Amino acid sequence: MKSLQIAFALLFTFTGLFAQRNAPRIISPEIQEDNSVIFRLLAPEASNVKLRGTMFSDFSGKEMIKNEKGVFEIKIDPLESDIYVYTFSVDGVTTLDPSNNIVVRDGSHIESRLMIPGEKVDLYDVKDVPHGRLSAVWYKDKVLGMTRRCMIYTPPGYDNSNEKYPVLYLLHGAGGDEEAWISRGRANYILDNLIALGKAEPMIVVIFNGNVLATSAPGETPLALRIEQNNATMATPGAMVGEKMPASIVEVLVPFVEANFRVKTNRENRALAGLSMGGYQTQKTTNLYPDMFNYIGVMSMGHYGQFGNYNKEEHVAQLKALEKADPALYWIGCGKTDFLYQSVLELLKLYDEIGFSHIYRESEGGHSWNNWRLYLSEFAPMLFKEK
Amino acid sequence: MKSLQIAFALLFTFTGLFAQRNAPRIISPEIQEDNSVIFRLLAPEASNVKLRGTMFSDFSGKEMIKNEKGVFEIKIDPLESDIYVYTFSVDGVTTLDPSNNIVVRDGSHIESRLMIPGEKVDLYDVKDVPHGRLSAVWYKDKVLGMTRRCMIYTPPGYDNSNEKYPVLYLLHGAGGDEEAWISRGRANYILDNLIALGKAEPMIVVIFNGNVLATSAPGETPLALRIEQNNATMATPGAMVGEKMPASIVEVLVPFVEANFRVKTNRENRALAGLSMGGYQTQKTTNLYPDMFNYIGVMSMGHYGQFGNYNKEEHVAQLKALEKADPALYWIGCGKTDFLYQSVLELLKLYDEIGFSHIYRESEGGHSWNNWRLYLSEFAPMLFKEK
Repeated sequence: MKSLQIAFALLFTFTGLFAQRNAPRIISPEIQEDNSVIFRLLAPEASNVKLRGTMFSDFSGKEMIKNEKGVFEIKIDPLESDIYVYTFSVDGVTTLDPSNNIVVRDGSHIESRLMIPGEKVDLYDVKDVPHGRLSAVWYKDKVLGMTRRCMIYTPPGYDNSNEKYPVLYLLHGAGGDEEAWISRGRANYILDNLIALGKAEPMIVVIFNGNVLATSAPGETPLALRIEQNNATMATPGAMVGEKMPASIVEVLVPFVEANFRVKTNRENRALAGLSMGGYQTQKTTNLYPDMFNYIGVMSMGHYGQFGNYNKEEHVAQLKALEKADPALYWIGCGKTDFLYQSVLELLKLYDEIGFSHIYRESEGGHSWNNWRLYLSEFAPMLFKEK
Repeated sequence: MKSLQIAFALLFTFTGLFAQRNAPRIISPEIQEDNSVIFRLLAPEASNVKLRGTMFSDFSGKEMIKNEKGVFEIKIDPLESDIYVYTFSVDGVTTLDPSNNIVVRDGSHIESRLMIPGEKVDLYDVKDVPHGRLSAVWYKDKVLGMTRRCMIYTPPGYDNSNEKYPVLYLLHGAGGDEEAWISRGRANYILDNLIALGKAEPMIVVIFNGNVLATSAPGETPLALRIEQNNATMATPGAMVGEKMPASIVEVLVPFVEANFRVKTNRENRALAGLSMGGYQTQKTTNLYPDMFNYIGVMSMGHYGQFGNYNKEEHVAQLKALEKADPALYWIGCGKTDFLYQSVLELLKLYDEIGFSHIYRESEGGHSWNNWRLYLSEFAPMLFKEK
């Protein structure tokens, strides 16, 4: 068995480019007993290495110190249980942590992941509970004129029953794609855990791409669309918002899901939620189609008057129609340090002014996945309780 | 709409760490008319940047030249249509290409992707054809004592019919996981395209994790297992091979798939194939269970006598039993420059010696995904033709 191990070690090192060969083994990140964390990077030729990450409130980066073996190191203060992402800056170039093979993506933001164990992360982790099935599914979108990919979570038991389920439609933020709520949001595992705990109803979750120029996440995209999409994503993200998203959701995506999955097809069993740009798209869609969704979630997105071209009269009329349709839940969540916080207060002010029913949840923190995972954990249990 | 674009551009840059802010936009990789490629990296503070990639036959790296704007650049010779992966080395530290948001993974090897258009890549790309559904599915493995994740491709039409399908079980190489055949191998799109062209029978493909210590790809893994698995993966990959894999496949995975998917459950409708370590596991499994699989594919893996602890008598007896079981196909593929090429010749010699029926396909190139995608493209059309 010994020689077999050596042989496969050879195979292993031979087949890739990423490993630093003949180099000492570096452990990074190393979580200490007290949840402080040591980060390390072997970079004998580099002069300057910084650590950036979502555990810090600023993006300037923390200087790492080089030891005599060429290893840059930093120890940071104990962290709360949560998921963080980070990168190193090596002589000014952003890199992943080569010692950490867990990499997550939110659109073009590709980062190394750090999970600090504890109660919060327990809800985001893969636990010994029944797991739903997560599928990548392609569908034709006549409104956007393209074949698109979405991710569909079917709850445990779906494949072995004839039961019909309610559906949550879930949108990401600007620059993201249909993988963001999986990779960064861990929506499928949050649902697994909430359902196992009896906190959420078994439901289908449809996670789709809110970028109207994109067929799918970058890695999947047809070659012909790749460059165009990259340019759009990187240079002019505003182009992604589009005014066609509400029609795409209501006229294409919902009918597709209802025709191809065992789904309860009435309004009482449909929810729509989104974060940031997806929160804007959620507002727009439910304002335009007040009879479609019974549960509505707006995460980290405020009054869209801030974006100009604003018609207050129209907005108020739409909200009144939506109020009349009487959705079971209109939920708004925002963090106190979110850069959109003021615009959320403006939205709440408008809603109070016109007597539009809603629930507001204010959390610590800002415009971050730490909040969006938390919001999903709180929002999903409120869904589909009205029978 | 203009101010909306600006607002979302702000959102977009605010939410991530990866983008180099206030920096000139760098295009990389840039594919020229003649399929030569320019790679660029903005790194004004770096002294030394190299390009490494699977388009080169050696791993030493090609020096990139810094211009007066701090952009390192290299133009490489025209490439054949195929998929390549590459990284930069910045002052000795391996990094992704920050201008390319397409990142692929084979286990711990996380690299930037380059697709050169043309006939070959047409088969690997997302085309305007019906697409199968790709699902991440968890199952209990009593042989390995853990809950594990596999990827299951169901062909177009599966969800809207009562038809039963044949199944190809597909294994990755050392250091990889159940995502490798998707991320690097594009197995789902290859099947979509082969089925649409009428070249392959509609089939289910089960892509599973051949590392007996791992529950799943690193990003999914339960926190408790993460460190143990990383250590095992990085330091002692031989431990992954395990002797339990054949029983795990035959006693757990196949029964699970046959109980939970609409599958033809006889030997005639089962295929097993694997690359490198997975080719070893394929040999071991079909030698031990000659009556299970009718189609067998061994990619880039030779005679396992090379690994020591070898019992020729046993091996020959097993092959004779397998010959007697008369599988419809025993296919071996290897590249001429594969470092296992000599051991493949030894395997062929043994098979010839004892009159064991097989088909041998020798290709250009080596131990690489360029070959494994090609082999799947050729192997899949040979499956399930015996009615």
